[in-house]
Amino acid sequence: MSEERKVQEVLARYVRATDRRDGKAQGALFTDDAVVRIHIKTGPDRYEPFGEPLIGGAGVEFAVTNFMSPHPEGGSSHHTTSDHIIEIDGDLAHLNAQFVVFAVQASARPADGWPAGVSGAQGTVRSIESGYYDTELRRIDGEWKIVKHRVLMDMPIAVPGA
Amino acid sequence: MSEERKVQEVLARYVRATDRRDGKAQGALFTDDAVVRIHIKTGPDRYEPFGEPLIGGAGVEFAVTNFMSPHPEGGSSHHTTSDHIIEIDGDLAHLNAQFVVFAVQASARPADGWPAGVSGAQGTVRSIESGYYDTELRRIDGEWKIVKHRVLMDMPIAVPGA
Amino acid sequence: MSEERKVQEVLARYVRATDRRDGKAQGALFTDDAVVRIHIKTGPDRYEPFGEPLIGGAGVEFAVTNFMSPHPEGGSSHHTTSDHIIEIDGDLAHLNAQFVVFAVQASARPADGWPAGVSGAQGTVRSIESGYYDTELRRIDGEWKIVKHRVLMDMPIAVPGA
Repeated sequence: MSEERKVQEVLARYVRATDRRDGKAQGALFTDDAVVRIHIKTGPDRYEPFGEPLIGGAGVEFAVTNFMSPHPEGGSSHHTTSDHIIEIDGDLAHLNAQFVVFAVQASARPADGWPAGVSGAQGTVRSIESGYYDTELRRIDGEWKIVKHRVLMDMPIAVPGA
Repeated sequence: MSEERKVQEVLARYVRATDRRDGKAQGALFTDDAVVRIHIKTGPDRYEPFGEPLIGGAGVEFAVTNFMSPHPEGGSSHHTTSDHIIEIDGDLAHLNAQFVVFAVQASARPADGWPAGVSGAQGTVRSIESGYYDTELRRIDGEWKIVKHRVLMDMPIAVPGA
Repeated sequence: MSEERKVQEVLARYVRATDRRDGKAQGALFTDDAVVRIHIKTGPDRYEPFGEPLIGGAGVEFAVTNFMSPHPEGGSSHHTTSDHIIEIDGDLAHLNAQFVVFAVQASARPADGWPAGVSGAQGTVRSIESGYYDTELRRIDGEWKIVKHRVLMDMPIAVPGA
């Protein structure tokens, strides 16, 4: 497998861990000294940092496990990434990807079955977030780990009262 | 072309065949003994099978040709896949990908032209389904064919009265 | 990096340039004699050309710089591509990809802060366009450049009064 694909699959595992709220799997993708930070777009090509950075795989694991809202009953999400640009220089890699997040809410089957005239998948799939992941990785013992991860959000994040 | 890319392109051809309702092209991607089955998510990491499995390329072709609703006038769809994880072991491959389906409905141009003040693409693009494809392939005479295909749907499928 | 990935990254740079309305970066991806044309879907597998073709990198740069609407305050877009099929024959390449365009509109933070009960990303992410990119590239001095680019739109484009 090419090194570029290996790098891309780190991100593929990252989004699955996020969507499953699996802090342990998520944390395992980062080095101990990794720095993860959300940035919010404030204008064309302008971003400002949001909140405090997370440090290391342990910090990521703690945040995913404790601070990400669990999916409601019937809920799922898909953090999808596309149009990756990957540059590899020896044991260092830089990855830039677009992301779009979908929130899924399944409808519950009525107790007396689906009504007449209804067909196909029942529920909603809504695009709710977007931006870019800008990520640096280091190859350690043949495995690519994230050392720096910037989540560049297109939209602001509400902090009530702030 | 790398084997991983070849495997990924099988899925790229699969979604095109689905979106074109091209049963023949779809069926050609599967072995004669392939097993295709839809599963519905019932909880975190839990799925249950839905309906009967399709067997082989002939079964897939028959189902696409006879049971998939044609697009309405002005209608299109896009089954998009992302964040592929591909493992190859000799002549066997395992592929896992996210999918999001978009239903497109073009607006018809009014007989007297588009009204003033309207611009851009006219119609709607709606995300309507999502989940994961979990797929096993076998390399036969140098070509990757699907032997097992699980469509893991996030949302239930309505069967009227059931 | 594989030639297929190089080709795919040309498209990744194309969508970034489009989303940033960066005519210069966009134009640099095309040869001087490139032909770019929008087509509109008129039926199953049927398209008809829309408007005049753009010619060459200079034509593309001019069009992006002068005719693409700037994003409104708080606005962004993501032209996302997926399910690439890439064929390379010596110094020629053919790329086919699905695209879905998202329009993003960030909400402005209220002067007295976000209200209680509001959380998460604030704004809207809407899928507004879709279709296929069908693209031919030529390798010149080791670099892939677009020589022909067809934007196959699923929906008609309104031209007021036309």
